[in-house]
Amino acid sequence: MSERTTLHRKGDRAVTDPVERDAILDEGLLAHVGLVSEVGGAPHPVVIPMLYARQGERLLLHGSPASRLLRTAKGGIEVCVTVTLVDALVLARSALNHSMNYRSVVVFGTATEVTDHAEKAAALDLLTDFVIPGRVAALRPNADKEVRGTTVLSLPLEEWSVKVRGGPPVDEPEDLDEPAWAGLIPLGLAVGEPVPDERVPAGTGAPAHVVEWGRGSDS
Amino acid sequence: MSERTTLHRKGDRAVTDPVERDAILDEGLLAHVGLVSEVGGAPHPVVIPMLYARQGERLLLHGSPASRLLRTAKGGIEVCVTVTLVDALVLARSALNHSMNYRSVVVFGTATEVTDHAEKAAALDLLTDFVIPGRVAALRPNADKEVRGTTVLSLPLEEWSVKVRGGPPVDEPEDLDEPAWAGLIPLGLAVGEPVPDERVPAGTGAPAHVVEWGRGSDS
Repeated sequence: MSERTTLHRKGDRAVTDPVERDAILDEGLLAHVGLVSEVGGAPHPVVIPMLYARQGERLLLHGSPASRLLRTAKGGIEVCVTVTLVDALVLARSALNHSMNYRSVVVFGTATEVTDHAEKAAALDLLTDFVIPGRVAALRPNADKEVRGTTVLSLPLEEWSVKVRGGPPVDEPEDLDEPAWAGLIPLGLAVGEPVPDERVPAGTGAPAHVVEWGRGSDS
Repeated sequence: MSERTTLHRKGDRAVTDPVERDAILDEGLLAHVGLVSEVGGAPHPVVIPMLYARQGERLLLHGSPASRLLRTAKGGIEVCVTVTLVDALVLARSALNHSMNYRSVVVFGTATEVTDHAEKAAALDLLTDFVIPGRVAALRPNADKEVRGTTVLSLPLEEWSVKVRGGPPVDEPEDLDEPAWAGLIPLGLAVGEPVPDERVPAGTGAPAHVVEWGRGSDS
């Protein structure tokens, strides 16, 4: 942990176990990627939602925003990647003790472009299968020109922090007789029935990797 | 729209209607707040998940991270606040046409601390009721010292962009005969049954503002 990944405030639990880090990253779908941009003025923060995948001790980032990221710095760009899972609203007996149960990972570092063709092709497959496990096997391989026309960034999992808030509300002792109901409203990811594209032949069932798609313990 | 809120890439739909902006902000629960920090080294991006509320043409930000934000700049700090709602995984017939249906709002600007006591007290009530409508009426009022001990930031909704991706997958014409199933896996927010705190008397039902809590069209 460096100075900037050390938690300075009391309360929520800081986690240093990479297993818990990876569990959060592997459950998440969307990262919020922050960078310092100089487009349109003085340096200012920009936060972009992006798809990602974890591959061992690095994150892979992908999506059209990656092009925007790389416009500013071909040789690598300093980013902060945050993945947050929301588990519950926490209702306490006073307003300011209300909270949220959540798990979040924050990663700092320099994201660099994956340029080796074979590595990039493999990274793109991993990105697809990270979001939808089993999907790559159902698809034609990416064409070389598709791989060439796509930007993938790699960010090492070296400087990171994990923060977790779990459990019931924590009230001040003098509030415990307040009449307000207290407890949790559990939240998670709802997954609906697959909706086939109109060109999928009638009567074609969705395959297992679609029907069984899920994320986290509620899925 | 300024240069930095103009979308530069094709594809997803840019939205300029503040009604749609507000619908996204009012459905969201969590913002990812980006700033440029100098804690622990050279200026670098930091992205923090935070609770927020929309009040007309401004966002209110709250939470322990606000203290960290304000350590760096008492007179206001430049931020980028992004709220993203994920609606579906979009499965196309080739890997690189896979996408996500989502709605996001990105707000740029200078967040300043709300210091007027009455305004801050009202902002804290609004933050509580924005996350859990009807909650404030069930709670004791915040004590003055609680209000004083809390940081609230205000960010005007002046410079913002909205991006929306909806609808089915878009495939290349030459891929339409590929055998892969294509379509949507709808995603949303799952809301579980309320879990009472252990000190809530047995047989006490959760009140309407808890039982009926929901967000978005699926709720």
